[in-house]
Amino acid sequence: MKRVLSGIQPSGTLHLANYFGMMKRMIEYQETSDLFAFIVNYHALTTLHDAKTLKENTTEALIDFVALGLDPDKCTFWVQSDIPEVQELTWILSTITPTGLLERCHGYKDKIAKGISATGGLFTYPVLMAADILIMNSEVIPVGKDQKQHVEVARDIAQKFNNTFGETFILPEPEISETIATLPGLDGQKMSKSHGNTIPIFAEEAEIKKAVMSFVTDSKAIEDPKDKDHPLYTWLQLFASENQFAQNFLDGGVGYGDMKKKLFEVIWEYFKDARSKRDELKNNPDHIQEIRKKGAAKARAVANKIMEEVKKKVGI
Amino acid sequence: MKRVLSGIQPSGTLHLANYFGMMKRMIEYQETSDLFAFIVNYHALTTLHDAKTLKENTTEALIDFVALGLDPDKCTFWVQSDIPEVQELTWILSTITPTGLLERCHGYKDKIAKGISATGGLFTYPVLMAADILIMNSEVIPVGKDQKQHVEVARDIAQKFNNTFGETFILPEPEISETIATLPGLDGQKMSKSHGNTIPIFAEEAEIKKAVMSFVTDSKAIEDPKDKDHPLYTWLQLFASENQFAQNFLDGGVGYGDMKKKLFEVIWEYFKDARSKRDELKNNPDHIQEIRKKGAAKARAVANKIMEEVKKKVGI
Repeated sequence: MKRVLSGIQPSGTLHLANYFGMMKRMIEYQETSDLFAFIVNYHALTTLHDAKTLKENTTEALIDFVALGLDPDKCTFWVQSDIPEVQELTWILSTITPTGLLERCHGYKDKIAKGISATGGLFTYPVLMAADILIMNSEVIPVGKDQKQHVEVARDIAQKFNNTFGETFILPEPEISETIATLPGLDGQKMSKSHGNTIPIFAEEAEIKKAVMSFVTDSKAIEDPKDKDHPLYTWLQLFASENQFAQNFLDGGVGYGDMKKKLFEVIWEYFKDARSKRDELKNNPDHIQEIRKKGAAKARAVANKIMEEVKKKVGI
Repeated sequence: MKRVLSGIQPSGTLHLANYFGMMKRMIEYQETSDLFAFIVNYHALTTLHDAKTLKENTTEALIDFVALGLDPDKCTFWVQSDIPEVQELTWILSTITPTGLLERCHGYKDKIAKGISATGGLFTYPVLMAADILIMNSEVIPVGKDQKQHVEVARDIAQKFNNTFGETFILPEPEISETIATLPGLDGQKMSKSHGNTIPIFAEEAEIKKAVMSFVTDSKAIEDPKDKDHPLYTWLQLFASENQFAQNFLDGGVGYGDMKKKLFEVIWEYFKDARSKRDELKNNPDHIQEIRKKGAAKARAVANKIMEEVKKKVGI
């Protein structure tokens, strides 16, 4: 079984694109691969300087992921900062990472362009990501197109380390998902928290309904055939790919309003079990802390083994 | 008592300028302040990628320092990588350190100009140095002029952290030593390993003698008055500031050859006790490892206390 690694941003309220873009795939991976999934709270620090929010978001991410089906017994699931060794590796790797490689990273430039302050952390983000990947001997890294370059950087750094200090790291492979980039939000743009066009998964019924009902539509009448590219169609397909209702939407005979109601029902039903599992977990904080502790111990054992080798090879 | 912190490069064969530039002051500080002295092997990684050498140099630095009079019971003395928490703090600090601040650091530019590869580690070196300083609640940092800017950066970062997350770090003060920049080597340039103009402290008698005898001199005769700025005079003064021999050198009547012989004798005598202490330590590797372990425990207790506070304040 290939070792697949994926990091999850503790970004607060989970939305549909988070789930279908990455979490769902992760939950499938745990059946077919040696899944390593972790919550990247060190990374989150590059853009979030609010202890309370970061702490809450980290715990929420743990709860959400388990509620949605991640099984800590079938994978290795931890919080990034619970394995501080990754920062030692980050430093070691940074001493062989050319600044030119980091300067070429789109992620850094994009964030600066969005008005995020240029900091050392933002600049060396790809080195921490490389350490995340390499410290766990990861083979496959499923990412969206925007993160492909970072996996390539991790691969370059691994190669450079192996050349400098002797064969040590597995060279990770990116696995690109097309879906991630294309899941549409309420306004038709990519669904993203920063666009304010998301549908939350675990909000109150009324809030989710209100969101779904606000999908942007045009003036087509009920009987008009609708566009295959309309976000409502895209989403309904994701929930139920064989669906007469969706077909009728395309052929004409289903209006936008009914399509929205249908989509809401499907969403509400789809996450029913996850919702009750989540309520249960929220009422049992000790259980969540137990999951966190166990996961950290499991991940740390892997990290410590490779760090022992790394330290020996560099002489510290 | 003020807490004074100083890092020592594990740079291999110790020479006279290492000792008079920094180590001697450190050994004096242990009597008058709360001294924190450590061997910066993580930093050394930015320019040294050879495990065997780094490991040996680290142990040699431990031995040399204790042989020369550092007393682990009178100070806190450790090896940087034995406190891995410093890398966690480095990451946390890097997320609030503007890249502009790092781009302005002369140390980075100077190293690139000398042909050292521009790496992420070299670029973020001042953040690791800030973490070294702040994780120990250091108040005073004795440095040469060339390191003054790095202490100012540490101070800026501490201030930024305090402003962002609440009062946490003491703002460190640099304490500049003029001596460091001016100790002359065999050719009259600053004594430095990179100039190949050093006098080793712990080499064989013949090697030290050979080095001292090769101080560059001019064609002045024995009876000519010699220059006050001649390196031979500078060094003899450092070993014995009231010295008729040195005076005669200036006034005329002592030739360069005799002055060299005299300087060698003075050096050889000065380090007599250190030499025998060093031989003793070299024959007792367990004792050195014991010193290293005890020092790490002492330093780690200080680091962990502040890291607990830092983590709470940033929310990880």
